[in-house]
Amino acid sequence: MNETPTYQPRPGPLNGILVLDLTHALSGPYCTMLLGEMGARVIKVERPPHGDSARAFPPFVDGEPEFYNTFNHGKQSVAADLESPEDRPLIEALVRRADVLVENFRPGTLEKWGLGWDTVHEWNPSLVYASISGFGQTGPEAWEGAYDVVIQAESGLMSVTGFADGPPVVTGTSLADYLSGTNAFAAINAALVQSRTSGVGSRVDVAMLDSLLGILGTQVFNYLANGVEPHRMGNGNSTIVPFDIFDAADGPLAICAPDEKSFGRLAGVLGQKEWLADERFQELVGRIANRDEILAAIQKAVADRPRDELAKSLQEAGVPSGPVRTVPQAIDSAQSHERNMVLEIAGTGMRIPGHAMHISTLSDDPSRPRAAALGADSEAIRKEFLD
Amino acid sequence: MNETPTYQPRPGPLNGILVLDLTHALSGPYCTMLLGEMGARVIKVERPPHGDSARAFPPFVDGEPEFYNTFNHGKQSVAADLESPEDRPLIEALVRRADVLVENFRPGTLEKWGLGWDTVHEWNPSLVYASISGFGQTGPEAWEGAYDVVIQAESGLMSVTGFADGPPVVTGTSLADYLSGTNAFAAINAALVQSRTSGVGSRVDVAMLDSLLGILGTQVFNYLANGVEPHRMGNGNSTIVPFDIFDAADGPLAICAPDEKSFGRLAGVLGQKEWLADERFQELVGRIANRDEILAAIQKAVADRPRDELAKSLQEAGVPSGPVRTVPQAIDSAQSHERNMVLEIAGTGMRIPGHAMHISTLSDDPSRPRAAALGADSEAIRKEFLD
Repeated sequence: MNETPTYQPRPGPLNGILVLDLTHALSGPYCTMLLGEMGARVIKVERPPHGDSARAFPPFVDGEPEFYNTFNHGKQSVAADLESPEDRPLIEALVRRADVLVENFRPGTLEKWGLGWDTVHEWNPSLVYASISGFGQTGPEAWEGAYDVVIQAESGLMSVTGFADGPPVVTGTSLADYLSGTNAFAAINAALVQSRTSGVGSRVDVAMLDSLLGILGTQVFNYLANGVEPHRMGNGNSTIVPFDIFDAADGPLAICAPDEKSFGRLAGVLGQKEWLADERFQELVGRIANRDEILAAIQKAVADRPRDELAKSLQEAGVPSGPVRTVPQAIDSAQSHERNMVLEIAGTGMRIPGHAMHISTLSDDPSRPRAAALGADSEAIRKEFLD
Repeated sequence: MNETPTYQPRPGPLNGILVLDLTHALSGPYCTMLLGEMGARVIKVERPPHGDSARAFPPFVDGEPEFYNTFNHGKQSVAADLESPEDRPLIEALVRRADVLVENFRPGTLEKWGLGWDTVHEWNPSLVYASISGFGQTGPEAWEGAYDVVIQAESGLMSVTGFADGPPVVTGTSLADYLSGTNAFAAINAALVQSRTSGVGSRVDVAMLDSLLGILGTQVFNYLANGVEPHRMGNGNSTIVPFDIFDAADGPLAICAPDEKSFGRLAGVLGQKEWLADERFQELVGRIANRDEILAAIQKAVADRPRDELAKSLQEAGVPSGPVRTVPQAIDSAQSHERNMVLEIAGTGMRIPGHAMHISTLSDDPSRPRAAALGADSEAIRKEFLD
């Protein structure tokens, strides 16, 4: 065990907020990592001897777990068993002092252990108590277990991702985990605005399934408005044409021209001013009606052009455009580094991805502490909260 | 013009918060819609005569715009031109009284109009001033215009979505818009915790590109840790096997068995207990090393099974599983309705998608007011803020 507590408060808008972190795996730890990034003090309670299963997830750099460090840096670690009577006084003391509790067990688990919302709300009426689950705390599917791929499937997102003549496609990241963690973080902060000004605590209930359903906007309301079932459209779009991927001489490129002005500029950069007089391509309705023709014409016009040079010409002319980049190209770009999207774990060779919430009251130092060893802060926390 | 203001404060954690909404299209209005859902009062300023371009976006139900209503219900509408000296006293009065300002113009636009952060921060030091943009307010690409498909391309997300032998694939929703709107909403609330308790305002700067880079976790750190470029894996996963889509007798099904316990249960439900003795399939490392064999064996075992019945058996046995559903199947499910993922616009036949942030201090009434007509609240707001 590490004897020096690794916790360092980070200057930020949540300074003074105490978070009791009962999470594991991805969605929950991502949420509490964001709370820590914003300046909250996060105390993570893990069951000995192994703690959060994510401590064992690959990859490792010089023996340090990259996954665990990405989502757990800046937190204090206490080894305690939520089911054990021996550890109960510590847990209860933490609950009574915390501003926020976050958990992502299956619905009903904390109730079984005597730590359900009703109990805890009596102990600490201003506490914000947040649960993240696959399907939510209510409803006929609440009991079901969930992993990201199950939620991508059941939400309908897969059914509209991919090509019309191909199978449904999973989005290439754990979208339901990240989005439910982000939604929980957001809802917790809204609840904190209330609890910190009025003393009224609340229960936050975020589901992975709801999180994906909630971002299917146009796909959902095209159906709700007209009863039309949305379908896979490859890389195209139902309401804007062109809004697609084209193959330039040396790689694929996104081009979007949503209105007459940008379509005119696109035709200009591609040397195809005759499109502007072509009656098939007048206004968005014309281009939607003659989708195949205009897409084929653009494809023909870009096929011989070097991609990055063309993207730059289009951007300079005011036409949104950009290359399909690999993950290394995207994360190693000057823009990504300028925006602190790559952070470093101090004292190691580890680099981890950053987050998108830039606030002027946050430091822009890209260095983060190493995640605490399991139980590294047990003694200090027991002393602080029990003595 | 509608003479009755449509604004109704919604009971919630942000009651008492005043939001000045200078947004248009999707990312910004989605952010301010969420603020309104949480109980904030949202005053949207739009330039006459057309206002937010999204007022013209299809589909329409009995002449009412479904898109606009989805993202703008519950907001008041003031017709005013941010560039006009005549409207300046109203804008300045709103800025001085607001708790939050949200905008999604191209970086530099509000500065040009004399409403940049430095100016506005002097007028109202506790204001939270939030900007949403394609690439952020800083860095070499800050000036570039962005639409969702460009960000999906440039972030690297497309490069890891799809099959190894096929092209990169766009995720079938405007993910960069929704996620940047959600991140801005989240960061604004964190900033409000600070401004409401200490009076210190701040600048929030959220980019669509950062928002996607920030959820590429494993894809990014597998590269940062080992220098290995992530690639498209179809519907599979690099660290869990099985975690994939299989074709049951009547449709595709997601199945995930991350550990020995769930793999044992999967083998049991499929009547393939011999897998448990097969040395190729021992532990996750064995199943990863023999990925093709175990996936083929599962595919064979599920090919004749009716999908929904099999999904239910697997769930009951504790194996995460679920059908690939269409959007109508997903949104019309009992679980979706129980969770308020379908809302109604009062007095119309319109139904709109809900959001994932359930908080006990929010009402669970699924009814929402119709979006305000352009300028519906101009007179009342002028009277309230200028007299």
